[in-house]
Amino acid sequence: MKIYFTFDPRPDLKEKVLKDFPDVEFIFHNSIDDGVLKEAEVLVTYGEDIEARHIEVAEKLQWIMVASAGIEKMPQKEIAKRGIVVSNVRGIHKIPMAESVLAHILAYKRGLVWIYEQEQKAEWSRKSKASELHGSTALLIGPGAIGSEIGRLLQAFGVHTIGCNRSGKSVDYMNDMISFDALQNTLPKVDVVISVLPSTPDTLHLLKYEHFKAMKDSALFMNFGRGDLVATDVLMNALIEAEIAHAVLDVYEEEPLPSDHPFWQMTTVTVSPHVSSHSSRYMERSLEIFKPNLRKWLVGDNELINKMDITKGY
Amino acid sequence: MKIYFTFDPRPDLKEKVLKDFPDVEFIFHNSIDDGVLKEAEVLVTYGEDIEARHIEVAEKLQWIMVASAGIEKMPQKEIAKRGIVVSNVRGIHKIPMAESVLAHILAYKRGLVWIYEQEQKAEWSRKSKASELHGSTALLIGPGAIGSEIGRLLQAFGVHTIGCNRSGKSVDYMNDMISFDALQNTLPKVDVVISVLPSTPDTLHLLKYEHFKAMKDSALFMNFGRGDLVATDVLMNALIEAEIAHAVLDVYEEEPLPSDHPFWQMTTVTVSPHVSSHSSRYMERSLEIFKPNLRKWLVGDNELINKMDITKGY
Repeated sequence: MKIYFTFDPRPDLKEKVLKDFPDVEFIFHNSIDDGVLKEAEVLVTYGEDIEARHIEVAEKLQWIMVASAGIEKMPQKEIAKRGIVVSNVRGIHKIPMAESVLAHILAYKRGLVWIYEQEQKAEWSRKSKASELHGSTALLIGPGAIGSEIGRLLQAFGVHTIGCNRSGKSVDYMNDMISFDALQNTLPKVDVVISVLPSTPDTLHLLKYEHFKAMKDSALFMNFGRGDLVATDVLMNALIEAEIAHAVLDVYEEEPLPSDHPFWQMTTVTVSPHVSSHSSRYMERSLEIFKPNLRKWLVGDNELINKMDITKGY
Repeated sequence: MKIYFTFDPRPDLKEKVLKDFPDVEFIFHNSIDDGVLKEAEVLVTYGEDIEARHIEVAEKLQWIMVASAGIEKMPQKEIAKRGIVVSNVRGIHKIPMAESVLAHILAYKRGLVWIYEQEQKAEWSRKSKASELHGSTALLIGPGAIGSEIGRLLQAFGVHTIGCNRSGKSVDYMNDMISFDALQNTLPKVDVVISVLPSTPDTLHLLKYEHFKAMKDSALFMNFGRGDLVATDVLMNALIEAEIAHAVLDVYEEEPLPSDHPFWQMTTVTVSPHVSSHSSRYMERSLEIFKPNLRKWLVGDNELINKMDITKGY
């Protein structure tokens, strides 16, 4: 059986895979080669390199393992039609992402940007405007594994957590749950609004201007899901009109964020270049999900860990 | 009875104190007046304004409430000789300080400074060098209420915590405890070294060059206790010689840190201007300790909350 990686993992990690599966043929490339694709039964990819025509070429393809969480750039229809199994690395993002979210919240509350500015000027002043995270209320939009991990950490800091999803069905580490319908009425009591929603047709521009208007003037808004949760101009207006105090963004409607975009210059916006899930341990963890799945696959069990419903996008 | 505040709290907080104790005479000044001091039975101060001669003037003084944690700048001998009761606000620092410590650790691990630099240049790059806090080992030097709170939060992030004090006696939220003697042997396995030690004769220059040499090259050193834990030139050499990767400092042997000090310019040092305990809720919390203490005092009970042993400095 041929397994095609469209990226090239670190040598030590690659060696371990080869050693664990001596009877499997692995091909590691930093690009997509049609000849290899034609023969591959399993494809391991970050997802962004796969187009509809690749699915056509890959005649023998039965399983795509996506070393990422979102699959919105993949040719979902073509994959579904062929009945190809798709699995992702959901779960491995939760530690680095939750740490990034907490890093940004705490940096904001404890005045780290101010401290760094003082440092650049070599200016000793103790007039910090530090506040506390403790005792705040946070709203998590779309909590799954990542949102729940963020909730767990927020609770450790004495934060009241409210989860918001389609159904209002309970999620771990949320003090309260609401459905999307109840957003508008809940926002006025929230200090930190955090979205980790993936992009699906249901969530496109889910947040409207009236939602930002309902938030506290002191609210911190964080988008760590997908950029199209809110129209860029809606978010910009809400910030310019001071409907909220600050936004930390890791995702954007257009990525890369154009270099002349106002967000870069606005002091009320922190621009993070879609790096919140980055970690020196990312590949190691992806392979920790891939290997047991491959063992299942080799004995004909296609009930894989993190098997996705490609038609729903998650 | 006269109670002399040598600072002037926010009007709403002051009003509450006056209302709660209608039979007590309060004087609020932003300075020390010898005439008032002469009559005061209770002195409420940040501690840094009290000199030996003030103790002599304050003939009727029986209790000093220090709205701070450290008392090393106070005339300890003169106070002890007079048998004046001293209490502090130990405990109220733990939430803001623990949040500041976690903010700095997470900012370091998740590459926030790099993100902010990209932002200043309006440059989209995803080559972040982010690592994770999860799975690290942290050493807390001098854990009391603050260190234990830091330990609790670190454990929530999946960090193994080691506490280090005189006796090696157990402290909450520490996975292991060691005594000062075991420092040298423990440092090689530690990723983050955090001191929250107060300044006492025992802790002056407790950390030597050999301690930094024993730390990992990748270690993060944080001093949030008192600046004289390590001689400034020892710390500077350890950083220049890359014995450790980075230092986050909130305290210094000389404060304010002189504007020409190399620390300001070193990229391996984060200079925080002694603000880690700052919080918009500081005074409110100080008064929450003061008020029950004053109730005790008024009925002749001098076993106050946070009563200190002035001769030991804590």
